[in-house]
This record gives sequence, structure tokens and C-alpha cells, in this order.
Amino acid sequence: MTELRGPVRIVGTGLIGTSIGLALGRLGVVVELVDADPDNALMAERIGAGSRLVQIEPQLVVVAVPPDHVGAVIAEQLRQTDAVITDAASVKSKPLTDASALTDDLSRYVGSHPMAGSERSGPLAGRADLFDGATWAITPHETSDPKAVDLVRRLAEAAGARTVELSVQDHDLAVARVSHLPHLMSALAAGTLVDAPNSHLELAGQGVRDVTRIAAGDPRLWTQIVSANSTALTGLLERIRDELDRMLVALGKEEAGEELASILGQGVSGAVRVPGKHGAPHIELVPVLVTIPDRPGQLARLFADAAESGANVEDLRIDHSPGRPVGEVELAVKPASVDQLVRVLTERGWSVHR
Amino acid sequence: MTELRGPVRIVGTGLIGTSIGLALGRLGVVVELVDADPDNALMAERIGAGSRLVQIEPQLVVVAVPPDHVGAVIAEQLRQTDAVITDAASVKSKPLTDASALTDDLSRYVGSHPMAGSERSGPLAGRADLFDGATWAITPHETSDPKAVDLVRRLAEAAGARTVELSVQDHDLAVARVSHLPHLMSALAAGTLVDAPNSHLELAGQGVRDVTRIAAGDPRLWTQIVSANSTALTGLLERIRDELDRMLVALGKEEAGEELASILGQGVSGAVRVPGKHGAPHIELVPVLVTIPDRPGQLARLFADAAESGANVEDLRIDHSPGRPVGEVELAVKPASVDQLVRVLTERGWSVHR
Repeated sequence: MTELRGPVRIVGTGLIGTSIGLALGRLGVVVELVDADPDNALMAERIGAGSRLVQIEPQLVVVAVPPDHVGAVIAEQLRQTDAVITDAASVKSKPLTDASALTDDLSRYVGSHPMAGSERSGPLAGRADLFDGATWAITPHETSDPKAVDLVRRLAEAAGARTVELSVQDHDLAVARVSHLPHLMSALAAGTLVDAPNSHLELAGQGVRDVTRIAAGDPRLWTQIVSANSTALTGLLERIRDELDRMLVALGKEEAGEELASILGQGVSGAVRVPGKHGAPHIELVPVLVTIPDRPGQLARLFADAAESGANVEDLRIDHSPGRPVGEVELAVKPASVDQLVRVLTERGWSVHR
Repeated sequence: MTELRGPVRIVGTGLIGTSIGLALGRLGVVVELVDADPDNALMAERIGAGSRLVQIEPQLVVVAVPPDHVGAVIAEQLRQTDAVITDAASVKSKPLTDASALTDDLSRYVGSHPMAGSERSGPLAGRADLFDGATWAITPHETSDPKAVDLVRRLAEAAGARTVELSVQDHDLAVARVSHLPHLMSALAAGTLVDAPNSHLELAGQGVRDVTRIAAGDPRLWTQIVSANSTALTGLLERIRDELDRMLVALGKEEAGEELASILGQGVSGAVRVPGKHGAPHIELVPVLVTIPDRPGQLARLFADAAESGANVEDLRIDHSPGRPVGEVELAVKPASVDQLVRVLTERGWSVHR
């Protein structure tokens, strides 16, 4: 089995590159930091992600530069070193295609996609535990050397992640489905709110908040991601457009029912497939709702009481009630724990409902 | 000012009707329960929502029957009583149109849309505080008597809700935007997951969970709602379909950037308009992330420590980490509270990040 001894060169010290450096630092691996912007590299060094000015023969190079440059840097590093090269791009086909155009031997390259931390950016946001418990996709291509694949697995494990291996094509279709398309749907729904009168927005509830939350992500980054994954996304978007057309035709008819019910039923079937807590398949949890006054210490009191009942809170949501200083907390617990939880909370004076 | 003395007749003792009965019961108002299904009415009576077998001359009638029957029951009650009539349908134009076809004088009818509790159903799910802090839309039409409108306001207030008044047309467009369209977008995104291989789903994160959550709602109910609001929705769906077409054309081009950035930018502008906590406009909150081991009592401990720092937790989310028994809690606090919160939590041994 291949061992990750280091040194590791990190090219691109944004959030992801810096965090990988910090994670490797936990294990005492020597890390070299490189960035086209010297300030970025300096900041990453300052927070302990590695060193800028070292002479190393890297065992591994991690390319964590913006999507449009990944392929070129992979090719450059393949030429300049004997190292295994990996990257962190969220779409895997583009780096491979771009690198292939610049160099012939790609056996030392194995694509990576560490799936963590997309909301903050820059080296100062870097964290050693960013990938703890996160999913790290590894996408060997046809000519990837098995030893190189093994080393990249070691990297992901060193960062605390759990690995999932897929082909380049499967990965891009997967993220198109579970990341990029939802982002686009969210953005389209949110776009209709731009010119909505304030009185319309007063009727907004938790549903639209959930659907539009991710639409607030950086549009420049997402434009690059979506463009890079245009092949996989085009197929999905065409399906969506066809479903939309079906919906519009149905709405224009007297008896829209069956057509709509079919599309909505598909939505239910898809929604229940989304993994819940800890990547487990959707498990049967019972929601227990508690009305909570919006004062300091209330959440703490609620959770202390819940803990005393012995119930493990598997999931929770806060629902905001416009206009009144109360919220509703939805605790999700396994069926066996419900009665106990409800009893204890009620005894403690909470307003509890199922 | 008109006073809600009662008696109040509630026709339709599902979740909404029963909850209204319970809310009025808190104030000692006499409530009569009517339902085409005698078992429903009996269950509602059993949990204290009112009485089935009373002879009353109602001051107010609340029609809380399924969407397709609302108009007919409104007309029937207008003919049979001298009461003010309101309803609870989530689309306001259809009941008005249906009732108008059956009776001439609609001055005693004022539409209502109490916006609460759509995930559970049936009389046994009824709660007296279902509408506490909830939004209750009131939609007077052209011939609605001002005294009737006033009485309906009293009803909403008695139920603990805050009222928003809009025209029938505005209301339907508003809920199309902030409720029905997001539901359809969610359903379309979720529908693409039905035939996704398990390996694809392993890459799912919080984003797709947020976007697809509401797609799990009852498809038969939503089919009725969407059909009833087809006019307002058709316009919005056509806009979405045109944006989708723009997106598809852009993705097929070499330089997709500007087109996509524009659509995504619109998404950001819309997303930040969605009201946050307590219906307030989106306020500047700072996220503080805490890694949390998935053991009983951890959440309680975290919130107790947060409370001791003096910070009021304005919002929170739990992010699930597939494969590892840890989660990440995102607490959102006002900027002034951040340093204090981070300091106290760090001192208590929590793994905290910003």
C-alpha cells in the first residue's frame, strides 16, 4: 500500500488548497505552497498551511486553482515533476480534457473532488478540519496508474474525508444532478422574486427559504462550474424543459390533474431518495414540534430537556414565524424515542405537537 | 369596530378547520362543527374544537373544505345564513369565481388564507396555537362589506395570526411566486433523482436537501392547489421556460459566461429578498460553525454554552456529514455578538470556525 510521506506541493492557496495544507500539517507532512498571487500564498503560510520558499521534490501535487486553469497547471506539473498529480475541481472532465491537449502521459494524474466548504473563500477561511467527515470523490481515468490512485486515496483519508470512487463521466453526471441542477432550479425560482412587491414577500414561508437558499452562492464561481459541466447539464435541463412544457400544457386544460399529479409524484419519489443524516438512506424519523419563545437561553433549555429524556435528536429545523417573536423548532427523532421525548418536554412546560 | 362574539360555524374539520375551532375555544367563543364525514367532525369535537349538534345562528362561517368544493359551500352558506362567510383556501380566485356562478350577493364573503401547517393533516393534528405568529392573508373583493372584512380580521387576530391584506389577484400571484413555483421547481429538481444510481446520491450535500425538501409534500393536495392557481402560475412558468431556453443556448456556446452569469445574478438578487427570521428583511447575520459529535446531549451542551456567552442565536442549521458521526451546526448571530460567542465556545472546547 502506498504511503503519503510527502512532501506535498499545493498550487492555489484559496480555501480548498489552504485547508488541505492545514490538514496535512496536522500529520506533520511537509507542504509547499504556490500561488500566482503572492499575497494568497503568504496568508496561507501565516495561518500554518505550509511554506512558500522551500526546495522540494514533491511526492504529490494538489492543483487547487480556479476551474479555467486547472488543466494547464496539471500538465505543467506533470512535465516539471515525477509526482502524482491531483486536483480539486468540482467538474472532472474539463481538467482531463484540457490537460490531455497539452501533454501525452497522464498516468500520474488522478482527479479529485473534495466536496466541502463552498460558501466561504480565500486562504484565511482555511480550516484543518474542513474535510472531516466530508465526501471526497476520486475519479481515476483510463490511464491512471493504480499506485497514483492509491496515493490520492491516502490524501483524502489524511484530510479526514470518506472517499467515493466514480468514473469521470459518472462523477460529472452525479454532480450535475445533486449539485448543479438544484442550484440552477434554485436560481430560477429566486429570480422570479427580484421584482416581487413587498406585500408578496410577506407571504413567504420556510418552503421558499429552503428552495432559494443556495441561489445566493457566488454567481461567478457557479458560472464557471456550470459551463464546465455543460454536457451533463444540457441533458438534464432538456428533460426539465420538457417537463415544464408538459406542465404548461396541462395547466391550460380543464383536466390538468393527472399530468400534474404524475410530475409531482415523481418529485416525491426523488425527494425521498436524498440521503439524510450522515449519508444514510432516508430513515423513518418522527418530527416533534416545539414552540419556542425567541429569548436567549430557550434553545439551550429545550435541548437540555430533550437530552434528559434520553432521545437523540437526529435532525432539527427552525421555522420562522413572521411578525411574532416565536419560532417553531422541529426535532426529528427515531420512532422509539418519541413518546418519552414528548412526555418529558410537556412536563417541563413546553408547547409540544406531533 | 366589529366584535367577534360568535357563534362560529366551521364547515370542514380537517387540520385547518379544527385548529381554528381550538383557537376560538381558547377565547370561549361557541363553535359549531360540520363535516361531510361524520367521523372527522366527531374527532374534532373529541379534541375540543367545538360541538357537532348545536342549533346556532352563526355570526361567522369558516369554510375549510378541500379546494374543489370551497366555492359551492360558500354559496350554500350565504344562502342559508345571514352570517359573514370566510374560507381557508390557499388560492383565492377560484372560490370567488365558483361562488359567483352560484349566487349573486357576495358582499358577506371575504376570502382568507391562513398560512400554517401544511405538512400534517386531519382533525387529530389540530392545534389551538397553529396560527400563533403565522401569516393570515385576507383578500376582500370588490363587493365585500367593510364590516365583514373587519370581522374576518378579528378572526385572524383571535387565532393569534398577523394579517396581510391583498386583492384576490395580488394574493394569487404572490403565492404563485413564494409558494407554488418554488414547490414546482423543487419537484422538477427532485424528479431527476428518481433514476439516479446510488453512487450519484452519495455525492449529495445540504444544497440538494434544501432544494428538494418541499417536493415531498402531498402530490394530490398540490395538484389541486397548482390547478386552482393556473392563471398566475402559467405566466411565471413561461418566464422560467424562457430562461431555461436561454440557459440551454448559452451552454451550447463557447462563451456561455455572460448569459449564465446574468441568470445566476438574478438568482442572487431574488434570494436575498426572501425574508428571514420573523418576517424581517434579510438582516446581516454572521455564521459561526461548530463541529458537533453526534452523541446525546451535545446539542444541549452547545446551546447552553452559547446562551452563557450572551449571544442570541438568531438562526441555525445542521449540516450532515455523510459517513462520519459528526455534524456541523451553523449558528447565525448578529455581528456584535460574534467575538464573544466564539471566545466562550472555544474556551469550552468546541471546534469553532467562521
